Parts: sequence; C-alpha cells; structure tokens
Amino acid sequence: MPLWLESDDPSFAEAFQRFLGLKREVEEDVDQAVAAILADVERRGDAALLEYTARFDRMNIPKERLRISEEEITSAETQVPQDERRALELAAARIRAYHEKQLPRDESWQDESGATLGWRWTAVEAAGIYVPGGLASYPSSVLMNAIPARVAGVDRLVMVVPTPDGVLNPLVLLAARLAGVDEIYRVGGAQAVGALAYGTETIAAVDKITGPGNAYVAAAKRRVFGRVGIDMIAGPSEILVVADADNDTDWIACDLLSQAEHDESAQSILITDDAGFARSVERAVETRLSTLEREDIARRSWEDYGAIFVTPSLEEAARLTNIIAPEHLELCVGDPDALSSKIRNAGAIFLGAWTPEAIGDYVGGPNHVLPTSRTARFSSGLSVLDFMKRTTLARMTPASLAAVGPAAETLARSESLQAHGLSVRCRLDRINEASR
Amino acid sequence: MPLWLESDDPSFAEAFQRFLGLKREVEEDVDQAVAAILADVERRGDAALLEYTARFDRMNIPKERLRISEEEITSAETQVPQDERRALELAAARIRAYHEKQLPRDESWQDESGATLGWRWTAVEAAGIYVPGGLASYPSSVLMNAIPARVAGVDRLVMVVPTPDGVLNPLVLLAARLAGVDEIYRVGGAQAVGALAYGTETIAAVDKITGPGNAYVAAAKRRVFGRVGIDMIAGPSEILVVADADNDTDWIACDLLSQAEHDESAQSILITDDAGFARSVERAVETRLSTLEREDIARRSWEDYGAIFVTPSLEEAARLTNIIAPEHLELCVGDPDALSSKIRNAGAIFLGAWTPEAIGDYVGGPNHVLPTSRTARFSSGLSVLDFMKRTTLARMTPASLAAVGPAAETLARSESLQAHGLSVRCRLDRINEASR
Repeated sequence: MPLWLESDDPSFAEAFQRFLGLKREVEEDVDQAVAAILADVERRGDAALLEYTARFDRMNIPKERLRISEEEITSAETQVPQDERRALELAAARIRAYHEKQLPRDESWQDESGATLGWRWTAVEAAGIYVPGGLASYPSSVLMNAIPARVAGVDRLVMVVPTPDGVLNPLVLLAARLAGVDEIYRVGGAQAVGALAYGTETIAAVDKITGPGNAYVAAAKRRVFGRVGIDMIAGPSEILVVADADNDTDWIACDLLSQAEHDESAQSILITDDAGFARSVERAVETRLSTLEREDIARRSWEDYGAIFVTPSLEEAARLTNIIAPEHLELCVGDPDALSSKIRNAGAIFLGAWTPEAIGDYVGGPNHVLPTSRTARFSSGLSVLDFMKRTTLARMTPASLAAVGPAAETLARSESLQAHGLSVRCRLDRINEASR
Repeated sequence: MPLWLESDDPSFAEAFQRFLGLKREVEEDVDQAVAAILADVERRGDAALLEYTARFDRMNIPKERLRISEEEITSAETQVPQDERRALELAAARIRAYHEKQLPRDESWQDESGATLGWRWTAVEAAGIYVPGGLASYPSSVLMNAIPARVAGVDRLVMVVPTPDGVLNPLVLLAARLAGVDEIYRVGGAQAVGALAYGTETIAAVDKITGPGNAYVAAAKRRVFGRVGIDMIAGPSEILVVADADNDTDWIACDLLSQAEHDESAQSILITDDAGFARSVERAVETRLSTLEREDIARRSWEDYGAIFVTPSLEEAARLTNIIAPEHLELCVGDPDALSSKIRNAGAIFLGAWTPEAIGDYVGGPNHVLPTSRTARFSSGLSVLDFMKRTTLARMTPASLAAVGPAAETLARSESLQAHGLSVRCRLDRINEASR
C-alpha cells in the first residue's frame, strides 16, 4: 500500500517530515574498492583497464579491440528496425532543437568609468559519456548526454559502455552515431571512469564526464571530481503528479507506474485536492499493475515508496511540491500555467494532462537527466551549459584605473595584501606623472 | 629560483609536463574527523555546535549568542574608517552592477508540432556563505559570495564566520551588511558547515553553501554535497601573465607578487616572447620582494612554484596558457583582444597592461571566486547562476502528442519500459476515438 496522508490531518506535519527523510537507496560501501581501481588505472593504463574488463565483464580482448570500430557500428546499425531508427532520429532532432536554444550569449559593455567588462563562453575541449551496460543501457540516455555536448561545441566526444560477455546494444551504437559521438570504447565500471579521467595509451583523457551508472561508477565520479568535471550523481527516479478530479484515472495511473517500473527504489507521488479521485487512481494503479511485464518491480516501488497526499486546495499542493522538489512534475489541472507559476523547486514540469512524463524521457526536447532526491532545490537538469565554461573579461583604461584604483588600494591595505596595492599604485603613479 | 623553460628547447615538452603535474597542496587527511563532527552536529544540533566552538575557537558562549546581533554589527561599522567604508561601497556597487547582467532569461516557444517548450530560472531559497576567520578573513570575499546570491533573488542569506577568541573583523561585518546578508553566526569549521547543511535549533538549514575555507571546511563541503549544493573546492591561487617586451618590468613584477603574497602555495607564472625581458622581470621581482611585508611567504611561493616560460611567439604563449588553464590571466600585450580570442581555458582575463589582476580582486566587477588548479578547463567562476536553478517546461497539445507520441511509444518498447509506452498510448487512443 502506498502512503496515504491528508494535509489537514493534525498528524500530517510529522508524517510528511518522516516521508521526506525516507532513504530510498542502500548506500553500498564501494569507495575503497573504487579507489584501488582508479589508482591502478592511473598507474598502469591500458593493462589495468584490460584486466578489469576481463574480470568484471568476462571479456578477454587485446587493447586494439578496446575501441568499437566504425565497421561494428555500421553493422549494428543495420540490425535496428526502421521504426526504431526513425523514432531515434525524431528524438535526436527534437532534443537538438531544444538544446540549441540554450546556447548562452557572450556579453561585453563599457561602464561609466570607461572600463570594458564582460564574459565569454567556451566549450569544454573533450567530454566523456558513461553509458551503462545490460538492462539499464538506454539509447535515449545516449542522446540526452551526447547532444548537449555536441551543441555546446565540444571538440572530442567519447563514449564508454561496458559490453558484458561481449553483448552490444545496437540501438545504443546507433544513438551514439546519430548524436555525433567521436569514439566509443567497450569498457565500463570505475575502470572506465579512471580511463576517461587519467587517460591511458588507448583512451586520451577528457575534461568532463557525464552519464548515469551503478554505485561503482558513482563513487568513481565523486573521486575524480576536481581532476575532471562531472555532472550530478543521480539517485532513483521520481514523479510527482498534481491532478484535480477532472482527470482520467487510468491516465494518471499509467503516469505513476511509468516511474515505478524503472526500479524498486523509484518513487511515484500523487497530490490531489479530491480524496475520492485519489481512491479511484489507487484502484486504477492496481488494475494496471497486474498487466505489466515489470509488475514485480513496479509493485515494490509503489508499495514501498508510493504516496498519495490529499490537500484542501491546489495552493497547498504547490506548497508541498516545493518542499518535495521532485525530479519530474506533472500538472494535470485545469490551468497548469497558473499552478506552474507557483512552483519553485522541480527538475522538469509537464503541463496539462496531454503531457505524460514519458514524452519528456524521449521526444519532448528537454533533457531527461534531472536532479533527484530533492536536489532540484539547488540544481538543474543537464544542459548545454554543463559542457561550457565562462571566462570573465575586464579591460581598464588609464582613466578607469584612476577612478577605481584607489579604492582597490585601500581594500588591499585593509586585507594586508601589500603587493596587491603596489600593482595598482605603480600604474597610478605613472598616470600622475603624465598629468603633471 | 623560479622554474625557467624555453619552449623551443628539445627538453621542453617533458619539463612542461612535470610542471603541470606539480602538486602545490599537501592533502591533509581530515576526512574522518570531519565525518564525526558532521554526524554529531546533525544529531545534537546547537549543543554540538557550541562544544566545538568552545574547543576550536576557545569561546564559551550560550546559544543565544551564536547569532551576531544587529547592535554588534552597527557597533562594528562605526569602527571602520571612512575611506575603507567608501572603498567597500564602491566595490559592492560595481560587483552588483556586473552580476545583474548575469541574470538569465526565461524562454518559451512553440515548436512546429504545436508543443510549447521552454524553461524558467528560479533562485535557491536559502544560501549560506562561509567566511574564514583570522588572517584569511577577507571582506572582499564576503561581497563576492553574497552579492551574486542577493542578485539571484535568494530569500534568506546566511553567513557563518568563526571568531577565534571572540575577535571579530569589523570590515567583514560591514561587508555583510552592504551585501545584504540576513543572518550572521559566529561559528566556523566543519561544525558550521554541518549546521548550514542539517540545521540546528538556532540556525535553519540552507540549500546551498559557498565560500572558501581550510582543509576541514573543504572536506565538510564535499561530504554535505548532495544534501545541499556547494560551489567549487578552491585550491591555491594562481596568476599567469603573458607579456611582450613593451612592458614596464616593475608593473609585471608587482602583478606576479600580488599572487605570490597570498600564501606559500600560490603560483605566479610569466610567459613572454622575449628572454631579455624575462630576465629583467626576474630582477624586478627580486627588488620588490625584499620590500614586502609578506616577503617570506611571497619568496617561498615564487621560488617553489614560480615559473617563467619563454616562447618564440605569442601564439605559442596562448597554446601553453590553454593547457595551464590559469585562474587569473593577464594579457599585457599590444593587442590583448586579439590574443584573448585565442584563449579557451582561463577563469578571468585581464586585458592590457592597465588592468592589474588586483583590480579584479576588489573593484573590477567580475567575481574573484574562480576555478584553480587547471579546473578552468571545465568550470567557471562564481556567478548569479550558482544561486539559481532551471526548471524545464513542456506542454503538449492533442495534435502535438499525436505527432510525436508514437515515436516515444516505440522507444519505450525498445527500452522494455512498457508503462512509459502505456502512458502515451492511453492518450493516443482517446485522440483516435475522438477522430472516429
């Protein structure tokens, strides 16, 4: 049974607090193992990478086969059915179009002192994308990670994907080709993250690593952070649906289950201002659940972490939503724009009942790599900006230096940083000499 | 003696590689101690905070005195000399004006399928700023951290600053008031970071923590990352000056020393296309060094980590600069804009000989919290965006869902995510029924 809370119940505050504190992830203590693997890859390069690949992915390959060849990719492509290829192409085009709008502008202006100020954005030179193997090997994730990097203008885009027992997912390779990935290596785990961060004889180091992975991959990303940039460390997926009573209960049930089926730690939440509607959705979920191929996973998720909150108003629903700060938020209400304007914390908002969250996973255009576990309070989904960095620019004239330099000198003195002051003073002296 | 390398020397590549690998920080192993402090503050709140403050800052205070009162701030203000107040006000105004230009725009558009797409930026609700105590307690850093938060629209801005033995820096309190900080607490170290991340009875938790600190503070920030957002973990400061022979050697020497005086791990680098000029700068540094109050620190930094690279051309200087990816870059050359356009990796660029880096530390306008240790390859200085997050928006119409929904269904099937497909299918069925 999912959690059921009514927000005008006297015990609500306490129960809601408990709900917020719920841990959905077992933290595996893999940090020591990961540290050893990373150090080994840094020291021994390809040799270590090949050994770990033999051990963990049961693949004994020579280093010449680390990289997946163009021929293999082309041959994989031919195995992809036409409708899947066309669907991937549509997704890629829509994701590209959305992300192109994110390209930031450079700025430059002159202030009243005559100084020229501004900034300039540039792309990261080399980026690496981690793609999980096995069941969680999603071609849509390849598009969502690779396309923003390409749009940003990354020069060299590398992908690593483990192929346990040599099994490749043709759709993942096709997605990589459509997204414009330059190099693909059949390695995974902490060892692949180490190769991307430190470089080996075969895999040149990158500047930024993104993409989801298991506990080993997450721990490795945390450890190499600083040496290279990383994206967020993603937790289990979540959806929050705010729905009024004017909704098809089956639609809402399907939406809740589309998160629950991801994995047992996923979380689906319904907030509604109508208790009767909530009961009907609960029954609809039961009906749909028993038809699902992934019934076991979805049922575990729904029963362990699912929640239904009944509120006296949609305003109260918005207030709770902002505290939960969900990864995905559906607003299935009469005026979704009005309700959306009350939302401050959410990774992605899906407006109106005609916008199921699954559209955002594939073909909507926005990125599906989004902040989980309440981190939408302070972070954003993956974007073109994650593959760029900003350099600030300043150019003083003698006049502007004369105007603001003395204040810099004063502050340098107050911070006991004499040479800071001298670097301004020696120039001000020149200006004074010249004006004499 | 600083390192001296000439880039057309056959051994240059190897020596330059060694230079890049130089570690300037002793990594203190404080992680276990920090973990214990954080867990204690999370569990015991104020009681733990007060005990650590008594132990580390030698201050036995009741919890009512954790917060610095308005009266204390006002009284501190009166101790600040007029010229320092005016300098701080000028700095605050210029930093504010620059950062206001960074406010990002929301976007919304309709695509060819009729879907409405876009995104919206919102401010983090509560942010905490860490300000070191003692020698490194810089009022300029208060402005550089607090003003971007305020410009972003943060609702609640908190500052923590240790006051060992009860000693307060009046200028730091004035800077906090000028920048619009809402609450100031006299706590520091890992315990202060814990209080900001978990909240105590007296200090409500925040969503994002920024600001520099010692090894304990850095380790604590790393550990609470995920629970709250953090800014970068800063390493020792750096400057790279690219200068042609048409420069006053004393100016360049002062600029190099303005970083060297920060601390013994700071790094100052000169790249020039004229070996004779380089020798003259080296002599000028020696002359200035012996006059500095912080001679010992600056000399250690210059002799241990300082470097002079002589290149055959400014193009080669730009190439080396991009590899070094300096925090601060001065371009003291005839056409700094032309050279700047060749720079991809740098935190901040100071264009022309009239723009000493120290201007950027105080009154230039751009932020002085910048990526160190080659991280400018993939990250940017502190900005208004660090205190905001982006929510993506999508709204489908029945027509747009009919156009792109089938592709989403196909991809969901290929990823074995049946309920994802169902959440689209149930809506497509309605459209089909309606059109029958």
